[in-house]
Amino acid sequence: MNAEEIEDWTEDDGYGLRPEVFAALREGLEVRDATVIDEIMDPLHAADIADLLEQIEPEERRELIEIWHGRLDGEILSEIEDNTREEILGYLSPAQLSFAVRDLESDDVVDLVEYLDEEQQEAVLEVLEPLDRVAVEKALAYPEESAGRLMQVETVRAPEHWTVGEMIDYLRAHPEELPEQFYHVILIDPRMKPIGNVGLGRLMSSRRNVRLRDIREEMFRTIPVEQDEGEVAYAFNQYHLISAPVVDEDGRLVGVITIDDAMIVLSEENEEDLLRLAGVGEHTISDRVVATTRQRLPWLAVNLVTAILASLVIAMFEDVIAGFVALAVLMPIVASMGGNAGTQSLTVAVRAIATKDLTGSNVLRVIRREVLVGLINGTIFAVVMGIVGLVWFGSPMLGLVIAIAMVINLVVAGLAGTVIPVALEKVGVDPALASGAFVTTVTDVVGFLAFLGLAALILL
Amino acid sequence: MNAEEIEDWTEDDGYGLRPEVFAALREGLEVRDATVIDEIMDPLHAADIADLLEQIEPEERRELIEIWHGRLDGEILSEIEDNTREEILGYLSPAQLSFAVRDLESDDVVDLVEYLDEEQQEAVLEVLEPLDRVAVEKALAYPEESAGRLMQVETVRAPEHWTVGEMIDYLRAHPEELPEQFYHVILIDPRMKPIGNVGLGRLMSSRRNVRLRDIREEMFRTIPVEQDEGEVAYAFNQYHLISAPVVDEDGRLVGVITIDDAMIVLSEENEEDLLRLAGVGEHTISDRVVATTRQRLPWLAVNLVTAILASLVIAMFEDVIAGFVALAVLMPIVASMGGNAGTQSLTVAVRAIATKDLTGSNVLRVIRREVLVGLINGTIFAVVMGIVGLVWFGSPMLGLVIAIAMVINLVVAGLAGTVIPVALEKVGVDPALASGAFVTTVTDVVGFLAFLGLAALILL
Repeated sequence: MNAEEIEDWTEDDGYGLRPEVFAALREGLEVRDATVIDEIMDPLHAADIADLLEQIEPEERRELIEIWHGRLDGEILSEIEDNTREEILGYLSPAQLSFAVRDLESDDVVDLVEYLDEEQQEAVLEVLEPLDRVAVEKALAYPEESAGRLMQVETVRAPEHWTVGEMIDYLRAHPEELPEQFYHVILIDPRMKPIGNVGLGRLMSSRRNVRLRDIREEMFRTIPVEQDEGEVAYAFNQYHLISAPVVDEDGRLVGVITIDDAMIVLSEENEEDLLRLAGVGEHTISDRVVATTRQRLPWLAVNLVTAILASLVIAMFEDVIAGFVALAVLMPIVASMGGNAGTQSLTVAVRAIATKDLTGSNVLRVIRREVLVGLINGTIFAVVMGIVGLVWFGSPMLGLVIAIAMVINLVVAGLAGTVIPVALEKVGVDPALASGAFVTTVTDVVGFLAFLGLAALILL
Repeated sequence: MNAEEIEDWTEDDGYGLRPEVFAALREGLEVRDATVIDEIMDPLHAADIADLLEQIEPEERRELIEIWHGRLDGEILSEIEDNTREEILGYLSPAQLSFAVRDLESDDVVDLVEYLDEEQQEAVLEVLEPLDRVAVEKALAYPEESAGRLMQVETVRAPEHWTVGEMIDYLRAHPEELPEQFYHVILIDPRMKPIGNVGLGRLMSSRRNVRLRDIREEMFRTIPVEQDEGEVAYAFNQYHLISAPVVDEDGRLVGVITIDDAMIVLSEENEEDLLRLAGVGEHTISDRVVATTRQRLPWLAVNLVTAILASLVIAMFEDVIAGFVALAVLMPIVASMGGNAGTQSLTVAVRAIATKDLTGSNVLRVIRREVLVGLINGTIFAVVMGIVGLVWFGSPMLGLVIAIAMVINLVVAGLAGTVIPVALEKVGVDPALASGAFVTTVTDVVGFLAFLGLAALILL
């Protein structure tokens, strides 16, 4: 392998790992050649190494880490998803662990250990410097998924009466105290309450005698330390924040959250909604069979109950079906169209609730629209299915029955697809998690009931 | 209304608008009192005003803007979603428009005008300063959804041999040339090629005689100007970038993209995937009835075709059903369970493809897992449904038929739910858009075929 070949393992037209890296790595693992492995891994970014570790087989993973052990640093570890990380931490020695976490900021250590079992958590905490350990333990005392878990305790702050010159002199005198990345100097009052932010660009381009309070940013928001991380991500996205001070109950500065952490949360929250809508809980592509089976089973069980409910409706009409088997052929169409239309409405509603775009102020308008859309689409597909029913089975009456049932079910789908998520949100249930089962039950039951009921009335 | 009441219209325990703001606003609109309206609107952040404008009725919106016209600035306009913004731009006068866009950076103007029709676009471009206009027109020449559309052309750059002191003196001497927000000084070579980034924190805490090249960041990536914005967002998220220089074909600096823009794209891409998976195209909660109907219709039409396909399968077994109506009662259960299991698998696969976590290196392992999960869950629900079939209809044979069909369909669901999105991605079709229809067709057809076919074999 020559230097040019290994120069860049990421895709030419984008990012992520190129397939060749895996082939080369497997060759290297086969001959257990540390030099080859180093040549492959060294040019990679920590995030790409993490992806690579997630994507190879568990045995390959263990072997790779053994050969390459000196290089598995904390940055890579914090990029790896929970299950794989837990597995790796299971066979790292205390020395390797201590090497891995020594350069991490407090928020990254928290991120690393918060979902570990107690024993593994203790093993990591033990190798930390005493001061860092206190910071991490303090963060772990805040609720899960709160601002306190997300923030770093290292802040850059100054009294508002300082001048630009004083600030720069201070920063130059204490470079070792500064966080790796920071975007604002936080202005504080004598009781440690944050009262403003000074952006570094503004600070740098201002004369030495200008007071910090005179160049603070217009936009300033503090984040309560117990706030849910979803709300934090919403605030960063909504107000285009870059960093925001975190305050305790008394309004005193306890840390700072930066946009890169908020971006990760935003991405996770979106993923959570997507997976929940599909009836998959927390899930990653590297989960094992047993874990995956367990995550999928509950939703399938719920679906079984709703499917049996629908079957009970069908069973009420067994005699009708026996007399007119074409009904059995056509009935899934009505239910399926209703289910799909309902899913469309509920997905739009769930997303709009998550982004706070569907609120009490416009819910009636949205419901009205969804019902109207159901009416229009229902009518269009009623005409189509009426003709299909007529041509296929030669029965105008059957065409009429399926047409009317289609309109009814698509209107109900629009109504249920909006009302159900809004109602779930009101009573404090995550609409992404539970809406699907409710809406499908409604459209299945109404679909079969309308179609078979009308058939019983009109055809018999 | 006293001052305390209007002090903060956003939620106490989070962000977003409080319901009271809408009630107060409607009162103000009724009496057409500009003072009342100003009192309500002035404390609100631009992003919240945009949400408010989206959530009220179109007539209220027009009235509000009329009364409050002087205050609708470019920041608010760029926060409003496309449809509502187009509507508003339709009735703004050139003077109002010119006021609105005068303070915007070039990337925000591009964002504002890129999806307008030509006439409206021209109206906005006309009110820009000549230099700004050139910058915007240049950006509009780049492909839609490319880095060129996303970047701002205002950059802060310096030759690498400069010292910290020279840099600070330069910034202080040219404050009017600086972008509103910037996070790095981009180091360039004599041919304008970016060769490194210096973070402002590091710059500020270094002594005046230190050379910029000695304090540049380890992590440095440039973005090609024609790169897709989805890839840009991926890079920011994967590599935790804060800002990155954009280069033209020759590698020369043409602009810079900052994390707040990348975060918006990331959020949009996630939304797109979510909505596409549910068969909803580009959609916002404020769309009108006709637009919504048009967006939903194609997917419902596709679903109708797949539902009719499934019906054709059922029709093959009309005689069997006529002889054994219980089959009609139970058959939707098998299809429904398969559809749900398939949706679970495909959602996980689509998400993992989007985050580049499902690649050629692990696709076989994921397929193997999905099939195994289908086998295990299929067996569990086979036992349950076997018992239900036996108890409900008193037929052990019927129980056996539904049990076997359940296992077959859940295994097929796991296979199709992974193979179909991966194959679509390979041939360049967005898996989020098309997987659902294919997978549901497979699980419906296989579900009915397995259940009714087995019934024909075993029961008759």
